[in-house]
Amino acid sequence: MNLDKLQQWLIDTNNDVAYVSDPISINYFTGYNMDPHERIFALLAFKDAPAFVFAPALNVEEAKNSAWNGEVYGYLDHENPWQMIADLVKKRVDNPLNIVVEKSHLSVDRLEKLKIAFPNSIFTNDLSPFIAESRLIKTEDEIAQLKAAGQEADFAFTVGFDALRNGVTERYVAGQIDYQLKLKKGVMHTSFETIVQAGKNAANPHLGPTMNKVEPNELVLFDLGTMHNGYASDSSRTVAYGEPSAKEKEIYEVDREAQQAAIDAAKPGITASELDAVARNVIKKAGYGEYFIHRLGHGIGLNVHEFPQIMEGNDVVLQEGMCFSIEPGIYIPGLGGVRIEDCGVVTDHGFETFTHTGKELKYIPVRD
Amino acid sequence: MNLDKLQQWLIDTNNDVAYVSDPISINYFTGYNMDPHERIFALLAFKDAPAFVFAPALNVEEAKNSAWNGEVYGYLDHENPWQMIADLVKKRVDNPLNIVVEKSHLSVDRLEKLKIAFPNSIFTNDLSPFIAESRLIKTEDEIAQLKAAGQEADFAFTVGFDALRNGVTERYVAGQIDYQLKLKKGVMHTSFETIVQAGKNAANPHLGPTMNKVEPNELVLFDLGTMHNGYASDSSRTVAYGEPSAKEKEIYEVDREAQQAAIDAAKPGITASELDAVARNVIKKAGYGEYFIHRLGHGIGLNVHEFPQIMEGNDVVLQEGMCFSIEPGIYIPGLGGVRIEDCGVVTDHGFETFTHTGKELKYIPVRD
Repeated sequence: MNLDKLQQWLIDTNNDVAYVSDPISINYFTGYNMDPHERIFALLAFKDAPAFVFAPALNVEEAKNSAWNGEVYGYLDHENPWQMIADLVKKRVDNPLNIVVEKSHLSVDRLEKLKIAFPNSIFTNDLSPFIAESRLIKTEDEIAQLKAAGQEADFAFTVGFDALRNGVTERYVAGQIDYQLKLKKGVMHTSFETIVQAGKNAANPHLGPTMNKVEPNELVLFDLGTMHNGYASDSSRTVAYGEPSAKEKEIYEVDREAQQAAIDAAKPGITASELDAVARNVIKKAGYGEYFIHRLGHGIGLNVHEFPQIMEGNDVVLQEGMCFSIEPGIYIPGLGGVRIEDCGVVTDHGFETFTHTGKELKYIPVRD
Repeated sequence: MNLDKLQQWLIDTNNDVAYVSDPISINYFTGYNMDPHERIFALLAFKDAPAFVFAPALNVEEAKNSAWNGEVYGYLDHENPWQMIADLVKKRVDNPLNIVVEKSHLSVDRLEKLKIAFPNSIFTNDLSPFIAESRLIKTEDEIAQLKAAGQEADFAFTVGFDALRNGVTERYVAGQIDYQLKLKKGVMHTSFETIVQAGKNAANPHLGPTMNKVEPNELVLFDLGTMHNGYASDSSRTVAYGEPSAKEKEIYEVDREAQQAAIDAAKPGITASELDAVARNVIKKAGYGEYFIHRLGHGIGLNVHEFPQIMEGNDVVLQEGMCFSIEPGIYIPGLGGVRIEDCGVVTDHGFETFTHTGKELKYIPVRD
């Protein structure tokens, strides 16, 4: 069905061939989900011929057994994939004039290889915006997958909170989360590396879990997510292990207020930029504006980060079915950090989150 | 030191600016290891000015506390990073003529953005081959890291073999491996998703662990690796759970002979193509040539897959210090598969592997 839309778009825009290179896009159009590492993997689609998948030989068997029902062609490592692709394409379109590629994904050298293989074709058009836009409004089925992924994230928080003890490392806690997700929920992939940050470490928003130990009376920040049938979850919670300082409690409450204000404001008609400002203004008014150093949120779906970006300068108008994160953060070097994040979907009148773990500051008793 | 080599190369090749975009390359030159997800992250290097790192604002604090001692500049999500980069570059080089990018990494749209930000510059040169070649011969320190990563892989096999039981899923076994690596060895990242394949599933070389259950009297294939201080390990073993069929035992012995023949043949002076043929001929002679559907091996280092590629058609002459995998495989649809893989380094007279788990067919008794 998604592939039909692509074919229609090729007709409408007068492009003869689409070379789809991002494995996530290929999954979106074919239902076949694969990571080719450095090897060549592509979906070739046409205005008026059936699409085919081109994959490393070692994935062909798997591709044929996947949700994809079309043709699959394989290449061996020592073969020239570009020439093979050109030959396969020319069997379907005699002289393709416009070949459209995913400019946000395809590397410069692979485009050069394609240009050599198709010396008479033009590669100026960009397929990426069409794909991003197609994926912007989620279907009911997609939303169901995102909700299921959110439930896994909620489970992961319970594991993480339970694992906090005096002296355990961030890495140990992250390991417990990943392990229990795999064991109890069958989660094969987290959507990114599980983040656990205790105390001052939480001032670096994207620092992975380290050998830093959890100590009494500090905040601990969790940021985690899972992949569920190809759809991502992504959520953050910050909890108190023992009794944090008054300052830490203060920034927690400011952040919570900012996040709730944005959730309350998210609905059809508001722009991404305006929504960002709703949360940012709460934090600015409390005097912490300089410590909120990233956008309010990002779209979520097959990618953990996709469109729409909820940030200053993005004037896209939010519509029912758009899914994204709301995640204000306050990061104070030398002190620590707070981030509270839920992903959700714009409904006809508001915003429904995919995660439901409580946001009142949770106090976890100090224990050995 | 690596950065000095880059600067010298810029002088030798008359390139004014290098725009390094691959996070692994940036790590190689700066010692700062970070995953920027979709955000812009670059190292800018010059013929005659100090290099600087350009990163998302939320990573600046972390970058400043990293091994990188040079300048770090951050951008906020709503800012235009390309204009900021252009301004920073122009403070160092008035009119950069040749700007060299990593064509194997940079996406087409980002190159277009750079061209707009530097309308008077030329972007035809490619930085990727220089970086790949720089990384081809490993230093003693790099080899020490690769050996340490290999020891972690050996440990992982013991965990995986111990976890085999009637009816456990592949995913459960993979979960045990990842968990014990994190808990006992402090391994934060595997170098790719841990692969456990029981019985027929092993015929699909890159299929991730599934809910397929381990059953008595079949082969189980493990392919796994870790990251150790930024360096990868990657190793495969295939074991017997109970008593596999005569056919399975036969392909195991053929594959083992092929792998050993290649290990014995690997030394300075032989080409990658010739080495591939050594193993392939063993498998061909035994009548299984059509089931060995990938190259013999790949380079390893900061990337789990890098140069040199050990495959037909690659006439690179192996030299002391090159590190790569030797991993023949035989995959028979409907039956199963075998792969035996060690990474190692070419020494002055041979090949020293980084993993040492035994390769005589290991029989694991059936148990509940």
